[in-house]
Amino acid sequence: MLKLIGLGLNVYGITLEGLSEARSCDKIYVELYTSIIPNLNLDTLRQIIGRDITLLKRRDIEEGSDYIIEEAGRYDVALLTPGDPLVATTHISLVIEARRRSIPVKIVHSSSIISAISGATGLQIYNFGRVITLTRAAGGSLPLSVYDVVEDNLGRGLHTLILLDIDVEAGYWMSISEAVGILEAMESIVGKNIFSNDRLTVGVARIGSTDAVVKADKLSKIKYYDFGGPPHSLVIPGRLHFMEVKALICLADAPQDLLKIA
Amino acid sequence: MLKLIGLGLNVYGITLEGLSEARSCDKIYVELYTSIIPNLNLDTLRQIIGRDITLLKRRDIEEGSDYIIEEAGRYDVALLTPGDPLVATTHISLVIEARRRSIPVKIVHSSSIISAISGATGLQIYNFGRVITLTRAAGGSLPLSVYDVVEDNLGRGLHTLILLDIDVEAGYWMSISEAVGILEAMESIVGKNIFSNDRLTVGVARIGSTDAVVKADKLSKIKYYDFGGPPHSLVIPGRLHFMEVKALICLADAPQDLLKIA
Repeated sequence: MLKLIGLGLNVYGITLEGLSEARSCDKIYVELYTSIIPNLNLDTLRQIIGRDITLLKRRDIEEGSDYIIEEAGRYDVALLTPGDPLVATTHISLVIEARRRSIPVKIVHSSSIISAISGATGLQIYNFGRVITLTRAAGGSLPLSVYDVVEDNLGRGLHTLILLDIDVEAGYWMSISEAVGILEAMESIVGKNIFSNDRLTVGVARIGSTDAVVKADKLSKIKYYDFGGPPHSLVIPGRLHFMEVKALICLADAPQDLLKIA
Repeated sequence: MLKLIGLGLNVYGITLEGLSEARSCDKIYVELYTSIIPNLNLDTLRQIIGRDITLLKRRDIEEGSDYIIEEAGRYDVALLTPGDPLVATTHISLVIEARRRSIPVKIVHSSSIISAISGATGLQIYNFGRVITLTRAAGGSLPLSVYDVVEDNLGRGLHTLILLDIDVEAGYWMSISEAVGILEAMESIVGKNIFSNDRLTVGVARIGSTDAVVKADKLSKIKYYDFGGPPHSLVIPGRLHFMEVKALICLADAPQDLLKIA
């Protein structure tokens, strides 16, 4: 059996089910490249699970996953992943290949920024549109799909969660400051006032951790706010319900003139 | 301090952090009315947490929450909730009121159908549009906002997660069969071929539990499929990436002529 087990958002984010399922496996792998869990490293994880764990790199899974599936055909193999398994889209091929060979697959869910963003900001999950990841400009061209998605969501009054690019193995993570710079560059090209200076923006850092930061302000001010270490994300709110306004003032220290900004 | 702690999707869905935070509280409350966790009842929860726990009804929180906040001002109080706290929108006022009185609030996230739906179906989280809840027809009028949201998402090629109404205290939960009946009734009125008989539909039941069911088929067939006990949800897929087609065939036993249906 192949078990994909979520590690959630912080060091102790694995569920009781996940812990039990991992401990009962013959072999435990972990990947820590699809997201960043603050303060989590291999040694800490070994202590928490109480078992030996093998760290996989991206190429181990993407290019050489056959032996994992073969092992899973002979005994119980766990793959621990940050957040909720399969929210990062890279592991679905592993699941499909295992099922194709009639190897049972079990997915043990845990917390993810996708739902946690709602509790962290007080913005209602029903008012979010499509989520998107902002990647670094590649080959000199800006990732303008982010502009289109936010514009489309805003046109429907919907909030947008923008996840920010990370490349753990290369030691890179996109900060809110860098992200806002890219959004401003898009604005200067497209010019539809989507990422204007006074656009209400919520920056969030390390959601789920004890030192999480949530701050709402104008886009131009969010750029210079100190959010500390990774991971960072952005939310561009759409039309706000009055409870959401209250929540942003209370949870995200939004300026009192928030409604005028929105 | 007031701690909102998520119970996740199944009996052992609380995280290690949630367990530790709950155990360190002076008083522990739980509400079990915003969602249904299969096989979870108060006695089981007391055994898992190893502490006495007080069950709150809807009116205890919505009408009489003042004493909870007052207690949280004097000592550490936990409120356990199904799924990820604040995804159900009913508790945000508790958080705002506590913060207004300068009482610290801590949110301990856990898994939610909002992100788990992606792993359970293989449909990519980036391709989902707005989520919506289908409620029972009230006062003879159909909840046509569901029709509008699915139409809008489909027009953008996006998937729609439709949560189904529950009223735990009244012993009511909407089944996929009942939900499809309501969608068909809407179709007969609006007539834009959104909920037509051959619309590709994914029914999911008890996601996160060992006996979870995921089944993709035409709308008219999903209606008569046996999904077992609650909770149930629906997904109306939009444009499918070829990996999503493979996933639906593999994880949701979708008919091989899926692509023609889609």
